[in-house]
Amino acid sequence: MFNDKINRLVADIEDWMIEHRRNIHKYPEPSRKEYKTSSKVVSVLESLGLEVEKGYYTTGVVGIIRGKEGGRTLGLRFDMDALEMDELTNLPFASKNKGVMHACGHDGHTAIGLGVAKLLIQLRDEIKGNIKLIFQPAEEDAPNGGGAKYMIEDGVLKNPNVDAMVGLHLWPALKLGTVGTKVGPIMASSDPFTIEIIGKGAHASLPQEAVDPIVIGSQIVNNLQTIVSRNVDPFEQAVLTIGKFIGGTRYNTIPEKVTLEGTVRTYNEKIRKKVYTRIKEIVEKTAELMGGKATLNYNFGYPATINDEKMVELARKAIKDILGENNYVEIERPATGGEDFAYFAKEVPSVYMWVGYGKENEDVYPPHSPRFDFDEKALSIAVKVLVKLALKWGKVKENDKCN
Amino acid sequence: MFNDKINRLVADIEDWMIEHRRNIHKYPEPSRKEYKTSSKVVSVLESLGLEVEKGYYTTGVVGIIRGKEGGRTLGLRFDMDALEMDELTNLPFASKNKGVMHACGHDGHTAIGLGVAKLLIQLRDEIKGNIKLIFQPAEEDAPNGGGAKYMIEDGVLKNPNVDAMVGLHLWPALKLGTVGTKVGPIMASSDPFTIEIIGKGAHASLPQEAVDPIVIGSQIVNNLQTIVSRNVDPFEQAVLTIGKFIGGTRYNTIPEKVTLEGTVRTYNEKIRKKVYTRIKEIVEKTAELMGGKATLNYNFGYPATINDEKMVELARKAIKDILGENNYVEIERPATGGEDFAYFAKEVPSVYMWVGYGKENEDVYPPHSPRFDFDEKALSIAVKVLVKLALKWGKVKENDKCN
Amino acid sequence: MFNDKINRLVADIEDWMIEHRRNIHKYPEPSRKEYKTSSKVVSVLESLGLEVEKGYYTTGVVGIIRGKEGGRTLGLRFDMDALEMDELTNLPFASKNKGVMHACGHDGHTAIGLGVAKLLIQLRDEIKGNIKLIFQPAEEDAPNGGGAKYMIEDGVLKNPNVDAMVGLHLWPALKLGTVGTKVGPIMASSDPFTIEIIGKGAHASLPQEAVDPIVIGSQIVNNLQTIVSRNVDPFEQAVLTIGKFIGGTRYNTIPEKVTLEGTVRTYNEKIRKKVYTRIKEIVEKTAELMGGKATLNYNFGYPATINDEKMVELARKAIKDILGENNYVEIERPATGGEDFAYFAKEVPSVYMWVGYGKENEDVYPPHSPRFDFDEKALSIAVKVLVKLALKWGKVKENDKCN
Amino acid sequence: MFNDKINRLVADIEDWMIEHRRNIHKYPEPSRKEYKTSSKVVSVLESLGLEVEKGYYTTGVVGIIRGKEGGRTLGLRFDMDALEMDELTNLPFASKNKGVMHACGHDGHTAIGLGVAKLLIQLRDEIKGNIKLIFQPAEEDAPNGGGAKYMIEDGVLKNPNVDAMVGLHLWPALKLGTVGTKVGPIMASSDPFTIEIIGKGAHASLPQEAVDPIVIGSQIVNNLQTIVSRNVDPFEQAVLTIGKFIGGTRYNTIPEKVTLEGTVRTYNEKIRKKVYTRIKEIVEKTAELMGGKATLNYNFGYPATINDEKMVELARKAIKDILGENNYVEIERPATGGEDFAYFAKEVPSVYMWVGYGKENEDVYPPHSPRFDFDEKALSIAVKVLVKLALKWGKVKENDKCN
Repeated sequence: MFNDKINRLVADIEDWMIEHRRNIHKYPEPSRKEYKTSSKVVSVLESLGLEVEKGYYTTGVVGIIRGKEGGRTLGLRFDMDALEMDELTNLPFASKNKGVMHACGHDGHTAIGLGVAKLLIQLRDEIKGNIKLIFQPAEEDAPNGGGAKYMIEDGVLKNPNVDAMVGLHLWPALKLGTVGTKVGPIMASSDPFTIEIIGKGAHASLPQEAVDPIVIGSQIVNNLQTIVSRNVDPFEQAVLTIGKFIGGTRYNTIPEKVTLEGTVRTYNEKIRKKVYTRIKEIVEKTAELMGGKATLNYNFGYPATINDEKMVELARKAIKDILGENNYVEIERPATGGEDFAYFAKEVPSVYMWVGYGKENEDVYPPHSPRFDFDEKALSIAVKVLVKLALKWGKVKENDKCN
Repeated sequence: MFNDKINRLVADIEDWMIEHRRNIHKYPEPSRKEYKTSSKVVSVLESLGLEVEKGYYTTGVVGIIRGKEGGRTLGLRFDMDALEMDELTNLPFASKNKGVMHACGHDGHTAIGLGVAKLLIQLRDEIKGNIKLIFQPAEEDAPNGGGAKYMIEDGVLKNPNVDAMVGLHLWPALKLGTVGTKVGPIMASSDPFTIEIIGKGAHASLPQEAVDPIVIGSQIVNNLQTIVSRNVDPFEQAVLTIGKFIGGTRYNTIPEKVTLEGTVRTYNEKIRKKVYTRIKEIVEKTAELMGGKATLNYNFGYPATINDEKMVELARKAIKDILGENNYVEIERPATGGEDFAYFAKEVPSVYMWVGYGKENEDVYPPHSPRFDFDEKALSIAVKVLVKLALKWGKVKENDKCN
Repeated sequence: MFNDKINRLVADIEDWMIEHRRNIHKYPEPSRKEYKTSSKVVSVLESLGLEVEKGYYTTGVVGIIRGKEGGRTLGLRFDMDALEMDELTNLPFASKNKGVMHACGHDGHTAIGLGVAKLLIQLRDEIKGNIKLIFQPAEEDAPNGGGAKYMIEDGVLKNPNVDAMVGLHLWPALKLGTVGTKVGPIMASSDPFTIEIIGKGAHASLPQEAVDPIVIGSQIVNNLQTIVSRNVDPFEQAVLTIGKFIGGTRYNTIPEKVTLEGTVRTYNEKIRKKVYTRIKEIVEKTAELMGGKATLNYNFGYPATINDEKMVELARKAIKDILGENNYVEIERPATGGEDFAYFAKEVPSVYMWVGYGKENEDVYPPHSPRFDFDEKALSIAVKVLVKLALKWGKVKENDKCN
Repeated sequence: MFNDKINRLVADIEDWMIEHRRNIHKYPEPSRKEYKTSSKVVSVLESLGLEVEKGYYTTGVVGIIRGKEGGRTLGLRFDMDALEMDELTNLPFASKNKGVMHACGHDGHTAIGLGVAKLLIQLRDEIKGNIKLIFQPAEEDAPNGGGAKYMIEDGVLKNPNVDAMVGLHLWPALKLGTVGTKVGPIMASSDPFTIEIIGKGAHASLPQEAVDPIVIGSQIVNNLQTIVSRNVDPFEQAVLTIGKFIGGTRYNTIPEKVTLEGTVRTYNEKIRKKVYTRIKEIVEKTAELMGGKATLNYNFGYPATINDEKMVELARKAIKDILGENNYVEIERPATGGEDFAYFAKEVPSVYMWVGYGKENEDVYPPHSPRFDFDEKALSIAVKVLVKLALKWGKVKENDKCN
């Protein structure tokens, strides 16, 4: 059977992928500075014989595989950047770059991309249409907008025009061997914000000469509760949390200033804007009514990632087909984290999948932990699913029902 | 001694005063409608031979007694109006006017005024300067501004010009037989207000389509607490109470509207204005920040009554002299109620006194109770004090220290 | 075709049903007092030749139709009670019982039940299994628990044992001619509650002698917001509304007592209990921390109505089959109202449907409006769907896929 | 005249006092560690020929002067400790002890004490009764209870028993050359407190798994406002300020813990205890109602300093007599700071005075400023007043009215 062939081909490259993964892990590079990682990707893709494009955003790379039979183009996204933090694993290939660590698995994602390239180039005759492998910088760079957005601005979805996109992430809550997804929202929009409250300081015993920013801040926190409780449709989701409340330096002084920091998570742009507008009104007017002033600095982070129904159907079939019925996981609720793959999903029908690395009776370190690591068997599993999906891609129309 | 003469003269008219008091009690008239009471006062004053002026504000009456020896003019104020409420006493002379009751002792005050007139006319030769007896309507009429204010506008302090004023009130917290006063604030400013909050109604299960005025009202009540806790100098006094919170008709409907009612008490005009300004800001902006609208209807009631130091000294001496040292009470803290005598006290140096009707081992009904009554012996006591004070009045300068 | 036969049979009884509906409308009876309505139902069912059982709860009636071929039993629920309110329609058959009105369409539901009886008795040969028509009292009687609960306690689901249930409601948001439903929650749990706050009254100017229940009430409203904003999983639904806040009688008196009334809507029993527990804690402790006392009187009303997936599938097919594909409406979000059909749905797999009476370009009066009315064509539509469903019922297993 | 003699004697020792003050300033010592300062005081007092007692509390020293004529004993208190802060003046005699500074004028107070000793020993023949000079450690040590309290426990008011006490402080709000005081409260009770709130941390997007201590803290701040607004008699004074609100480390994490710090100022022990009790109730129950836990760590600092009416009268006369009528200042409102002289004032009739060092058209640095300094002319002024007071002391009875 054809699946056997895929399995065999993947098995052949497993060690090669792991070596690449470890090498990338050892020399992690932060967002927009993925210079060496990007060079490595270019040289591998070129050596494999793909058409290669460089220079997207900062370090973005594209490899194109044109199927034997012409058709529509499917994009596969792999993110390459690491986090600015110190690694605490004792892995033999732990980070050599102090203060930078591949704690979010993008070393794995990049290796998966290389593996997919190596396989698909061998299976080109089976492909209908084109496959565009997009190696993206700066996924962990929400404050600056994220690499996906800027690669799109730089034309990554054009020539040939991309008709659909696929993305994935290594995922601790799913067992190793399984892959999951869902229709609709799968990742949240995640917007950090800061509130600066300016009152008027005075000695603690002279409140009448002060404008007390701690009282203002407390009222803001209170009033913000009404957004979720009163302004958000109960059938929509929104979370608004103030994670930090910092004000004052001495017990006996009314301070000048208080700073609040928080975040908003939503899965729907209309709700997101309503929440933003309500925060702004509450913050500014609560301060005013107390005689002070407050400003909201709201950072619109990545939007929610919304999976397309048909693309999910395609992915579901690919996963079940290559991994077996039981290794597909139907995700019940979206994650609350953000992901800049969302920008691709806003442009074309897309599917974002979670690739399990969880263990049966043991907790694994989640992404962003300084002890994060994953079972490298997940690399082959991801490659199998993407290859299967790429092969199914060109035949979607004809076989929609029978497969 | 001269005090004996006063005591004897007062004893002679006691029954006559009580009869007048009971008659006035039986036919109480509400603010601005003291027609019969006023007529009665006019006919008594005329029959006693005083110069009488009518037509101040609505039913105000003035009786003038010119002392043998010319000099400055002292005004004595007596209020005449009753309250709109049903009497629940079983007095033989209980109200015959349904829905109106002399529950604040103004029947007594008027009778005291008549008694003073009857005595002073007999003692005219002992008086230096003039005594102006002012019978005032509408003391219980704060929403309309109070009778004192309008009698002043109508010229009651002119021709002859009044140089100082005296007022009094029957007082349950002081024992019968005693009279008290204090320097500075003795009665509060008392400002009622109403807040109308307009939200947007909806079914209880659709908060996202509503603007919830009950939440807004609750936040307003919360925010108002910060005025006294943060904006008022701790060495000043202010009380702000919401006495009524009325909103909604059904448990399962977010209403359109909530109404709050409350009151502010202060003893200092600057604090009063600051409190007013802060209420207005809090009310309007709290509603706005929730997407609603609220309006404050603040009624500046009577200002605080501030006693003049020299006039208090004069009253203190008069009381101690005629009633005995121990029957003078030095008031420690002002009352929290309002009194439109305050307007007189803003114009000329004034003293406002409390005339005790309290009992030793028994509670008495306070003013505004439907069971209010007072021991009529208090009438004679008040007359003695006022007569003594009127006689001392002309001699203030010379005898400042010796008396 | 068989559908033609159903349509023809329904057409034949349309006038008869309308006459019954109007008659019931004219003589509405409140919950637990549906004496005449119930008698009428009994006499019709008996005249049609059904097995009839009386005496369930108060006025509940059951009619049983045993199909030619034995099998499992399907229950159809029809509620009979009216609301205690004055009718403001000008219908020729408007209520003759002052203060009672069929403003929720149960007159229609009952007439539909009679129509279904009349049809199914004619089609008995086509029925596999049994059909139990349940005419229920007191659906509008949440404070007392609702008729469904008590009919179940009285054994209505036994002898023969009911295996599945169907219920419906006339629905303004769906166009006339359409019928809709959805898998999972379709009606909310709806729990009314009352909070009584006991403070300590005092004059408005003496807050230090009082415990201010208006401040307590405001803090309770404030604190309750945190339940939805912080304690409810954002992927679950809960609404908590205070619809009434009543406290105080005079602007210048701190009252003894404040009463709040509100409601909670949820679609999940775990969330419902969490919300209840949090309300109780907040209410009691907020009062305590202010030195007062508050008690929560929480009325667990009807639970959420949860439709069974297979029963929805059966209904969907019946609707599409008899009314046409386009006249089935897939409901996107549950209603926020409660329905005691929920108790049946907790016992056996059930489906609850909405039968449209909305108009194209015109608003219709919703249930509980004093001007409520509906297009009587909806009666025939409902009968067709129920008859079709009853006929499909017995054949579910064999034909699961082909129909 | 005798005043001339005093003035002359003080002029003679002015340079000597200034030298001592500067030396003490140069080598400041923190609370309970006034070793060298104390030794210096002992050696001066001994060299002057006073009876000297050592070892009170840590470094407390007492010098006794027995007047020629026997009588009651008057205590004069001088505090010796410095503050733990870096000095920012450029004085030639600026602190040589890093991190310690005489920023509260206790260097001056100690020098005044030495000056008073030097004068009174020369005027012993004029003294009736005894004068006890109390050099006290640890006035700035509220968290540990303050030196006054412990010197009293160590018997400083015994043998001979002290009948009255006098204390003073250099004061920026009064002009140089003036000294002021008032009857009743002159310094506040000042109680610092800390509130620790324990919630339950979670990711910002999972509030349902957390107990949010920032929301709890905000509600506590909110609820605390009601103490002053509702629980404190408006004719009493209380200030309650939260000066610090510290919670959270990251915008996207609900923290475990929040810490609040604040202070309470009162002038009446009953109010102080009520405020404490209400804070405790509010803190604990607000946390509980949100599912968290909070503890109040309330530090009862120094009580309010209450001046005795007769002692104030004595001081007033001494000041007017030696400095001239116009150089006495009648203080209108108490300071809001605390002072452990309060403990003496609780034991015996006492007067606490403020000795001006303010300038006409220029701001001076207040105590606790790192740039604090004072005009050394104030030393002589203070000595004159204390000497005059000491001399009047023995004659109080006889001359009560004539002087």
